[in-house]
This record gives sequence, structure tokens and C-alpha cells, in this order.
Amino acid sequence: MFERLFVPEELREGFSDGAWLQAMLDVERALAAAEARAGLIPEDAARAIAEACRADRFDPAAIGEAARSPGNPVEPLVRAVREAVGGDAAQYVHHNATSQDILDTASMLVARRAVGMILESLEGLCGECARLAEAHRATPMIGRTLLQQALPTTFGLKSAGWLLGVLEARELLLRIREERLAVQLGGPAGTTGSQLAKLLSEELGLAEPVAPWHTNRVRIAELGCALGIAAGAAAKIGLDIGLLSQNEVDEVSEAEGGASSAMPHKRNPIGSVLAVACARQAQAQAGVLLGSMVQEHERALGAWHAEWPALVGALSYAGGAADASLRAVTGLDVHQDRMRANLEASGLGSDVGSAEAHVDRALAAYREVA
Amino acid sequence: MFERLFVPEELREGFSDGAWLQAMLDVERALAAAEARAGLIPEDAARAIAEACRADRFDPAAIGEAARSPGNPVEPLVRAVREAVGGDAAQYVHHNATSQDILDTASMLVARRAVGMILESLEGLCGECARLAEAHRATPMIGRTLLQQALPTTFGLKSAGWLLGVLEARELLLRIREERLAVQLGGPAGTTGSQLAKLLSEELGLAEPVAPWHTNRVRIAELGCALGIAAGAAAKIGLDIGLLSQNEVDEVSEAEGGASSAMPHKRNPIGSVLAVACARQAQAQAGVLLGSMVQEHERALGAWHAEWPALVGALSYAGGAADASLRAVTGLDVHQDRMRANLEASGLGSDVGSAEAHVDRALAAYREVA
Amino acid sequence: MFERLFVPEELREGFSDGAWLQAMLDVERALAAAEARAGLIPEDAARAIAEACRADRFDPAAIGEAARSPGNPVEPLVRAVREAVGGDAAQYVHHNATSQDILDTASMLVARRAVGMILESLEGLCGECARLAEAHRATPMIGRTLLQQALPTTFGLKSAGWLLGVLEARELLLRIREERLAVQLGGPAGTTGSQLAKLLSEELGLAEPVAPWHTNRVRIAELGCALGIAAGAAAKIGLDIGLLSQNEVDEVSEAEGGASSAMPHKRNPIGSVLAVACARQAQAQAGVLLGSMVQEHERALGAWHAEWPALVGALSYAGGAADASLRAVTGLDVHQDRMRANLEASGLGSDVGSAEAHVDRALAAYREVA
Amino acid sequence: MFERLFVPEELREGFSDGAWLQAMLDVERALAAAEARAGLIPEDAARAIAEACRADRFDPAAIGEAARSPGNPVEPLVRAVREAVGGDAAQYVHHNATSQDILDTASMLVARRAVGMILESLEGLCGECARLAEAHRATPMIGRTLLQQALPTTFGLKSAGWLLGVLEARELLLRIREERLAVQLGGPAGTTGSQLAKLLSEELGLAEPVAPWHTNRVRIAELGCALGIAAGAAAKIGLDIGLLSQNEVDEVSEAEGGASSAMPHKRNPIGSVLAVACARQAQAQAGVLLGSMVQEHERALGAWHAEWPALVGALSYAGGAADASLRAVTGLDVHQDRMRANLEASGLGSDVGSAEAHVDRALAAYREVA
Repeated sequence: MFERLFVPEELREGFSDGAWLQAMLDVERALAAAEARAGLIPEDAARAIAEACRADRFDPAAIGEAARSPGNPVEPLVRAVREAVGGDAAQYVHHNATSQDILDTASMLVARRAVGMILESLEGLCGECARLAEAHRATPMIGRTLLQQALPTTFGLKSAGWLLGVLEARELLLRIREERLAVQLGGPAGTTGSQLAKLLSEELGLAEPVAPWHTNRVRIAELGCALGIAAGAAAKIGLDIGLLSQNEVDEVSEAEGGASSAMPHKRNPIGSVLAVACARQAQAQAGVLLGSMVQEHERALGAWHAEWPALVGALSYAGGAADASLRAVTGLDVHQDRMRANLEASGLGSDVGSAEAHVDRALAAYREVA
Repeated sequence: MFERLFVPEELREGFSDGAWLQAMLDVERALAAAEARAGLIPEDAARAIAEACRADRFDPAAIGEAARSPGNPVEPLVRAVREAVGGDAAQYVHHNATSQDILDTASMLVARRAVGMILESLEGLCGECARLAEAHRATPMIGRTLLQQALPTTFGLKSAGWLLGVLEARELLLRIREERLAVQLGGPAGTTGSQLAKLLSEELGLAEPVAPWHTNRVRIAELGCALGIAAGAAAKIGLDIGLLSQNEVDEVSEAEGGASSAMPHKRNPIGSVLAVACARQAQAQAGVLLGSMVQEHERALGAWHAEWPALVGALSYAGGAADASLRAVTGLDVHQDRMRANLEASGLGSDVGSAEAHVDRALAAYREVA
Repeated sequence: MFERLFVPEELREGFSDGAWLQAMLDVERALAAAEARAGLIPEDAARAIAEACRADRFDPAAIGEAARSPGNPVEPLVRAVREAVGGDAAQYVHHNATSQDILDTASMLVARRAVGMILESLEGLCGECARLAEAHRATPMIGRTLLQQALPTTFGLKSAGWLLGVLEARELLLRIREERLAVQLGGPAGTTGSQLAKLLSEELGLAEPVAPWHTNRVRIAELGCALGIAAGAAAKIGLDIGLLSQNEVDEVSEAEGGASSAMPHKRNPIGSVLAVACARQAQAQAGVLLGSMVQEHERALGAWHAEWPALVGALSYAGGAADASLRAVTGLDVHQDRMRANLEASGLGSDVGSAEAHVDRALAAYREVA
Repeated sequence: MFERLFVPEELREGFSDGAWLQAMLDVERALAAAEARAGLIPEDAARAIAEACRADRFDPAAIGEAARSPGNPVEPLVRAVREAVGGDAAQYVHHNATSQDILDTASMLVARRAVGMILESLEGLCGECARLAEAHRATPMIGRTLLQQALPTTFGLKSAGWLLGVLEARELLLRIREERLAVQLGGPAGTTGSQLAKLLSEELGLAEPVAPWHTNRVRIAELGCALGIAAGAAAKIGLDIGLLSQNEVDEVSEAEGGASSAMPHKRNPIGSVLAVACARQAQAQAGVLLGSMVQEHERALGAWHAEWPALVGALSYAGGAADASLRAVTGLDVHQDRMRANLEASGLGSDVGSAEAHVDRALAAYREVA
């Protein structure tokens, strides 16, 4: 019930049982194709395996249930795929691989899709912030430090600050998507050949790592941190909008304000609220991913398993934060008269210094990459 | 897919859309009954409302979807219940209450059920640890500090240490279940009368708070922390069993060891692995609940919303840790010969000091409360 | 530089090198006294050891430096004490104990003193909140949910909510101080006799545990969580005061507002700011203590060591939060006229419902324990 | 006492009161120089200010104490510098700046120095791991998954995995040092001119940001996360060495093993222990920095202040983890005979697959950047 409230539906679908199943099957299929190209298994076998690797041929609930015994879903899935393939080809399913190879590489596929969606939200958010920065480049308002009126600024500069935060977070995620989402292939002890990893990376369009990374989890932690940062940049916007929406301040209102069960007069800044809430969860999951870097030998006693829900959580709630923040800024009602009135009431003058020049620089930086 | 692996099915069901829906409906029903007793609404209306408050009459997905606009599921649920009740009685649905009253009180109902299941797992775990402590009261083994052989101890004392940790965690949860799971009733600004809260607490069998606790979240943080502590106590057992299961140590094996997709010879300590993994997630959620205590005015700008998935996560994964640890210890295969051999190889003698006396004290403490 | 800003001096002194040294020496002295009472060492030796166990006879910096090699300060301290005692008695220093016994028990002494100071701050905070609740029992103001004006309440009820949060946190800490700060005595593998632990607990006025708790860290995690909760309850007050101090709201000002380096017109809510900042650090340290529960065998490979700075941090910053929040509420300037004006501007009436009755109940609960 | 145990002395000195004071004075000096170059203040004034900006002319304790009232040390420092400068020039001290400009920019200077030292430790660690990888490229040992013997690998490949983790973490920190440590200059509301920021960045050798980043904290969170990742990569090594050092495994021992206060026979893996302990603290501080991204308006109500101890903690303990891990690997005693014996006892053959090829690739990647 709550995930539906926080996480956009399209993103959630990417973490469904079916989506995970398909991702794991995609890896088994690509592995067979790579092995055939390397001459390690017959081409016929690879074709038969490709044929079988369709999620709709398997029951995710049954596989999920069967996962409880070995402690991961790959073992029962491999058994099921072998059965589905049948004949001589069955023995070539999962050849040279271990459960972790499949699950880690499938995680990368799931993450790639989700990061793509999150990037879209972040880009939408950048666009809206840029629009506000441009439109309100010179709209004066009072700047506030420690929640006290400080000196004049412009709403454009505030929006430009939001823009730069999201832009920087986006750059982190972009770099990770391009360079750090890599195939994992090492077999049970990480000693499987790197030539096969190269072919597998070509099949799947993922990066090729220097070596198997089964217990070198820097890339997972990087991804988690970038998601926590993206959520934080989005939630900063939400917090500001929530504060500006206070009746006593009343400088903005969300276009699509939320209704209240008891108070029909209210127009709640729900996008802001959800962005702030999502960031807390996304950042906690980043913390789990950081902590889980400290893994035993060639596969951890729990820290690897701990990554799975944490990665899903970090992707879900970073996406939720970006989406909620986008909801908050889209069509944001900017009350310039109230900004002006609050500024005048502050008695702190009207000199906005270089606010407009800062806006221009921020917009230029944005346009360079947009 | 992963939740199924980590969280026992019965526990998961308690967090299903249907379960949440029913919990919220139970609160609306009990509220109407309390109001009728207080003479605030007609008895007929309370009866009509009770009639309508059955989860199978509503569509959780539709309510979950409709929750996105107001930012919580109560607002659409109240509309749906009003429609289901119809007529004059409809106006008495949700009377004097605000969304937070319903959701907070429903959370307490959901938590009570889940804590009950977790307590059962913890009690099972205590029972198994006590059994091991008693059976191996005098079974000598080497004690290890910083993973180095230190001085002799007994496997009974090790098990008694596990027992005491779980026992102490259980006591925390018991106290919270008895004293701290309370109704929340305050209306939009926390000013609704306390007489009604008393009646509502009687209807639901929850504690009556001194005053509305809409933004005094100590009890939620206490619950989260107790769950994190329970998970930690369970995972300590898992870690020890995982370490003792190392082939080179080989002093125990889990009865129901996990299979491997690539290595049929392995008997993995999967209960241990899952306990350790679950604790990381449960404790991260405890951290979210702690952080979310700092709430704005009479309802927070996001920190309240952040509690919902965190509470579900803390309950789920504390239960998962207890369950996994119980799986690990149940029928644990204790290799006394290997314990003796490792002890002898250490050359550190065989004096186990007061180990047996410590075991006796631990078992006495256990029997006092079991 | 920053600790001085966040942590009250008296509290900081309790974590100085000298204070830690004295706490460890107090444990060695008490251990010798207990052993003499048990007839395990000569009374003369105990007297000689007591004579030597004065912090001013040792160089904390030298001992701290020498701690790097064994990884804890007890080993070099014991060597230094033996040298200071000299003669036959030297052999009875640290008799039957291991480093962890001394350090864990010393931590309990350090924690007891710090918790005492924190409780004083919390009690001061309760007193101030109670004073505000009583004085403003009926002072009307607008209640705010999601930062939007909702329905009328009273400033007394808001203060009563603060009071109850702090009161509940105080109760947790009180219980821990009375029941959970216990001696640790187990020797290298936790097998040292419990009779000695009983005598040691009498010497030091700490609780006697059921058995050695070297890797059963529930009590440490409980303490950490209670500190995180206390900090959260204090920071809730700070956040509210910060929000009410906004120029546009202007319903309160801190008596001792902070100056600004650039803007002499500002009166910053510094107590509030510091309370919010401290809570983040205290709660993060609670998280470290939770995570560190999962310890290997009879002494952990790092998780025990991780507790030391975390416990100091949790105590320091919980104390800092309580102190800062006390600074914020003491002499708080309550602008009743602005409360009234904001309420009127809201157009939401003036019915404060049962606010006054809630205040009375909160004050009664407070008086019962004050 | 504990910081001395965990954090290398040279690193600690970089966070002393004197070091912070000098960093803030360096910023005031550079600001005056930049303003003189821009023609905003007389050159004479800049020279007089430069003269005064020497830490030994001020009392850090007094400034720290005076910081409690305004809530930051810049305000009393500026007063003290103005007094030290005297005459007409005094008015040009802190011209166009606000406290946050000085403190944020000083933080960047402090961080740059500390990151430099941490990078040195990480580079030392890479060198030692590379040495081990090369020397033991083909030294066979058993690979372990879930702490169970799995398939053969080589100690060189294990070391190469350590190397790659540290190398990746180092790259993150390098990039941050080059691109993300930037001057902050915005004045009270972030509207101070960007031309001045450019000049200031030239004076200090820090990056020039697109715009003031007073409440866009992405760069701080990035730094915190990179430190948490570096600590995690270092602690992974520590955990492995601790596990391999178990008496029953006995495949390595630290050269400089720690002594025990009670058990002279022990040779504790203290470097490993400390690395694991430090990582927990560094990663918790990264979490505080992530959470503190969500800042109010133009300066946060506490979240900015929360960054100060968190940044110091993250730098300190990441450095501590790198240093401890370096201590663990330096001169590591590798027991090839025991590796061989454990491998043979496993009965899992001796085929190390492509282990050596993976080592070569890792070493090539290292040499490219070393």
C-alpha cells in the first residue's frame, strides 16, 4: 500500500518478481550465447537455452518459495531452466557460472532500467527548475538563513540552486550508468576466465570489469550513494517548497495540492512531503549498501544478501523522491506579490546583488549538458 | 522476490494491502463504537459503520492509487466507507478523527500482530538456545577473541550467551507490546477529547496514552529500536554459527543446510546468512524511525510518512532475523569431537572455569520468564 | 573546536583522557578489593593497588599512544599499574580479568556519570516545558499540519507534547541507569566466576549481570537507542521553536538569540539549531551501536572497538541536544499577540477543543514523576 | 584516548583547533587579497589583514567558547581579527562574506589536506596489495563462499581483489579532490558576485563553483560517500585478514600482531580489527552527511552545523581505516604451506582457472594509474 504511494508504478514494475526473473533469464541466455561464441558450448544448446529463457514460462512465486532453502533464487531457477531446456542442451545451462554471477549481473540489468527512469525524472526536474530560474531570474524575495530573514535574493536564484544540485546528482548517476554497471562473471571462486566476461558484457551492453567483483562492492556502494545523493537533492527542493507554502509565508503553492480527510480548506504540499519522506528511506538504504561492502572472502556471510532489498529500496525511493519533487515543482504557483510583500516587510532593502548573474551561470551549465 | 526469501509468509501477510485496509477499517469501526458509547453519534450509525468496515468490500489497489493525491490512504478510504455506509449514517464515519489518528492507530494494530509473531520466533529461539545450553553445559570448546583462540569455554556457555541476548531483546518487545502500543486520537490539531481516546483504547485493546502523540514519536522510535535490537541479538547467533561452520573449524552444521547452484558438495549455513542479512535491514529501518522523531508542529512535513515503510521494514526484517536464526539453531548438529580436537590443538588446557555456573544462572533467568 | 560548540563542558570532561584513565583505574582498584574480600588475593595487595590507582600517577597520552600496538589502552595501563604497585603485590593487579572486563566496566562508569548529567538536562527541559504548558494552557494559537494551518490549539498543548516526549525519553534513560549499567567480568573467554562479579558490582555500585556480557551487547544498544531517542525528543522542540521563530510567523523568540557575523539585525534561534544538529550525530552513533551488536564469538573483530567512539558520541551529542534545547526554551519569549493574530488570520475559528484537558493530564503525569 | 587509537596523529593534527583556526584565517586572508585584486578594498588593507591572519595570534579555546553564543566560530574570529588589524583596515575584514562562506571554504582546505593524507595511505595500501598479488599470483589456496570452502583460487587473486577495491575508491577521492573541493562565496543570501569567487579560488587553489553552494550540499555528500567507500574497501581487507588469521585457518599473520593483557600467547590481528572498527564510524558519518543534504532555504536550521563533526569524523575514520589496513598488510606473513594444506584437505582439486590472468589484468590496471 505504501510503496504504491511513494514509488512510481513504472519503476515498481521493474522490481516485480517477473522483472527479476526475466533479468536473471536474460543473463543465463546471454551467458549461453557468449559461451557458444567462445566455442565452449554448442550453438544449438545456446539456441535452446535462449528459447527457454522467457519469464512467462516460469512461476516466480514457486521460484521465490524454493529460494528459501538455498538462500537465493538462482539455484531453483537454474533447475527449472534445465528442465525447460531438456535433452543434451540442459547441461549447458548456467555453464561456468555461479549463483552470484547471475544475480549480480541481473541486478545490473534491473538497476540500468531503473536508473534510466530515475534519470528521466531528474531531467524533468532540471527542466522545471531551469524554467523557474529563467522566469524568475529577477523576481525578488527575501533570502532566509536559519529560517530568519537575511538579505534579498531572487526566486530565480533559489531555483537555480535547486537546479545545480539535481544536475550534479544526475551527472553522478550518468557516469555510473555508463561506466560502473558491469557484468559479474567469476564462477564459484572468482576464477572463471575474463574472455567470457568480455563476451557476456557485449551480449548485455554492460561494462566489462577488470576482474570479477564478487566481494569488491565499490560499484554497488557508489550506485547506492549516488541514489542517496539524488534523493537528497530532490528533497531539498521539497523542503523549500513546503516551507514557502506555509500560510504565513505563502510564496508558492503546489499546482496539485493534496486534499485532507478532515479539513477541506487545506491545500497540502504533498509532492514536497513525499520527496522528503522518500529521501530518508533512500539514504538509509545507501547506508546499508555502504555497510555491506565489508564482505567475507569470495562471498559474504549475509552482507551480499543484504544488498538485494537495499538496492531495490535505494532505486525505488530515489525514484520516488525525484518523482515527488517533480510533482511539486511542475506548474508551481509562484506568488510574486507575496514574495514582494514579505521582502518589504523585512525592511532589508531590495539589492539582490549578483543573483541574476548566478542564475545565468547556472542556466549556462545546464544548457551545456541538457 | 527477495521479501519472500527474508520474511516469513505469515508475517508478510500482516503487511499486505488487505491487512492494512482491515486495520484502518477496524479503527474506523471502533471509533464509531466509541462515539456511540459516548453519545456522540447514534448507535444505529455505529452499527451501519461496523457493517461496512470489512476489507473485502473495498479495493486496496484503487485506494492505494487514490492515496497518491492526498498523500495517504485514509482520505480515499473514508470516502469509500462513507459511500458504502450511505444514508444519514455516512456523516458519522471518521467523526472527530483525522487521517493520522486512523493510520497511527492502525499501525499499532498491525504492529501488535507482527510483534506477536516476532515474539513467538524469539521464544522459539530462546527455547532452542536453552536446550543447547543445557545439553552442552559442560561440552568443552575453545573460546575465541578477535577470532584467535583464547581460553577454554563450553558450548553451553556460548549458547547461554545467545539465550540471554535474545531474552533481553524479548523483554524489551514484551514491555512495548504491553505498555506502548497505544491508540492515537487527537483530530486535526491534537485537541480531540481524551475521554474518546479512553473508549477507543478499550474497543481496540490498545493502551491509552496520556495525550495525543501525533508528533511525539518516542513510542515509535522505541519500537523500532527494540526491533533493531532483537534483530541484532538474533544475528549474533547467526554470525557465530556461520563461523563455527567453517570447514576448518567444523564445530557445528545447520540441520537444514542450503544447496549451491554450482557446488553440490556444499552445505551452506543459510539460516545464519539470512539472519545476518536481515539484521542490517532491520537496523537501518530503526535508524529511519529514530531520525523521523524530529517532526514539525502538529504533523510532520515528510517524517511521518517516512515512518510507514520503515515500520513495516523493521517489523519484517526483525521477524526475518529471528526466524532465520531459529532455522539455524533448530536441530543444530554439534560436533563435540571437533570441539574437543580444536581445543586440544590449541594447547590452552581444559579449565572451563565457572562456565557451568554461568549456564545455570542463565537457564534460571530463562525459566523465570519462560 | 566543534565539540566545544555542541557538547557542554562538564559532559566533555567526563570523556577526557584523564576521566577514562580514572574510570579504568577505579575498576582495577575495585577488582582488587573484590578479590581480597573473596580471599583470592592478599588484603595488603589490594591496599597497595588502591594506592596506585590514581590517574594523576599516569600519563594518559603515553598510555593512549601505547594502546595502538595491542589495540586497547588496558594492556599498557596494566603494565604501568603493575610497575607503580611494585613488589609482590604487582602480580595481583588485573587478576582474573581481561582487557574487555576493565574497559566495558569503565565504560559503564563513564556512562553513568554522563547519563546523570544528561538526565539533569532532560529534567531541566521537562521543568521548562511544564512551566510553558501551565502558563500557556489556554493561550490560543493555530495548529499546523504539513506546515499548513489546520485547527486551533494552545501553546500550552504544544509545550505539553514536548514535555511528554522528553519525559518518556527520560524514563528510558532512568531505567537503563538503574538496571542496565552492569559490571562486566568474565576473563578472556567469559568463564570467570560470577561470585566475583557480584562483589565487583557491590564495590562499584553497578548492576550485577546474569552472566558475562562480553558479546551480548543488548545493554549497550539499549543505552545507545535511549540516547538517540532523548536527542530526538529534544530536537523536536528545537525544530518547532525554529519554525515558530520565523519572522513571518514570529510566535516565539529564544531569550538568548545568536548574533550573526554579517547581519546585526538577526536574532538566530541558536539553541534550536544546535539541538537539531546534535540529534543527527547522536542518532547516527546509536546506529553504530545497533550495528555493532553482531559480534564474533567471545570478542568481536572490530565491532567491540567500534563501540567506544560511538558510545562517547552518543552520550556527548544526546547531552548536547538536551542542553541546546534547554537553552532554547529557557526564558522563551512567547508572543501571544502574534499567536492570536496568526490564528485570526487563518479564519479557522477559536475552538481549542480539549487542549486544556490534555495539558492537565500531561502535567499530572509529569508531577507524578518529577 | 580512543581517537588516538584509531586516527593517525598527522591526520588528527589537521583537525586540531589550531588547524581549523588557521584554515579560517587563510580564507579571510585570501578573501582580502581577492578583494584587493578586484579593487573592492585598498591593497594596504589586504596587506594588514594578511599580517593579522596567523593562528598563533589568537586563542582557539577562547574563540571556541565564544562560538557557543552565535553558534559558529566565525563570528568571534572576525571580531578578533578586526581588533588585531585595527585602524581603517579593520572594516575590510570579512568584507562581502558571511560566516558560512568562511567556514565552508575552510572546510575545503581542511578536507584537501586530510584527503591528501588518506590518498597516501590508500596508495600505500594499493602498493602492498599489488606486491602481494604479484608475489602470490600463483599461490594456490581454497576460495571460500559463505565461509564454506568452494573452489581453488590463488592468494594473488584475493590480493588483486583487495587492490581493485582500494584503487576504485582512490579514484573517487582523487576526482573529488581535483574537481569538487571548491570555494564557497555568496554572502548572507548567496548573492555575492561570482567574479570574486573566481579570484578567491585562484588565491586558494580550490575549484570555482558554478554558483554559491550554501544549501546545495552535493559536493559534501559526495566527499562523505567517497570516504565511506574508501573505508569499506579498506575494511574488506581487514575482515579477510582477520578470518585468514584464525588459528584453525592460519594462512596469514599480521607482521605486527597485537599483544593481549591476559594471554601472552596471542598474536592479534589488530590492524584488521581497527580497520573494521573505523569503517563503521566513517560510514555512519557518511550517512549523517547524506541526511544533512536536505537543508532549509539559504542556510539550514541545524543540518549545516551537523556537517562539521560528521566531516571531521568521516575524514578521521576513513583515514584510520586506510592506515589500519595498511598496517595489516604491510609485511603480512603468508603461510603458503597452510594454504596448500587447507586446499588439499578440502579435496576440491587444484584448478585455479584464470586466477593468474585476472591478477595480471588487475596489476595492469594498477600500473596504469600508479
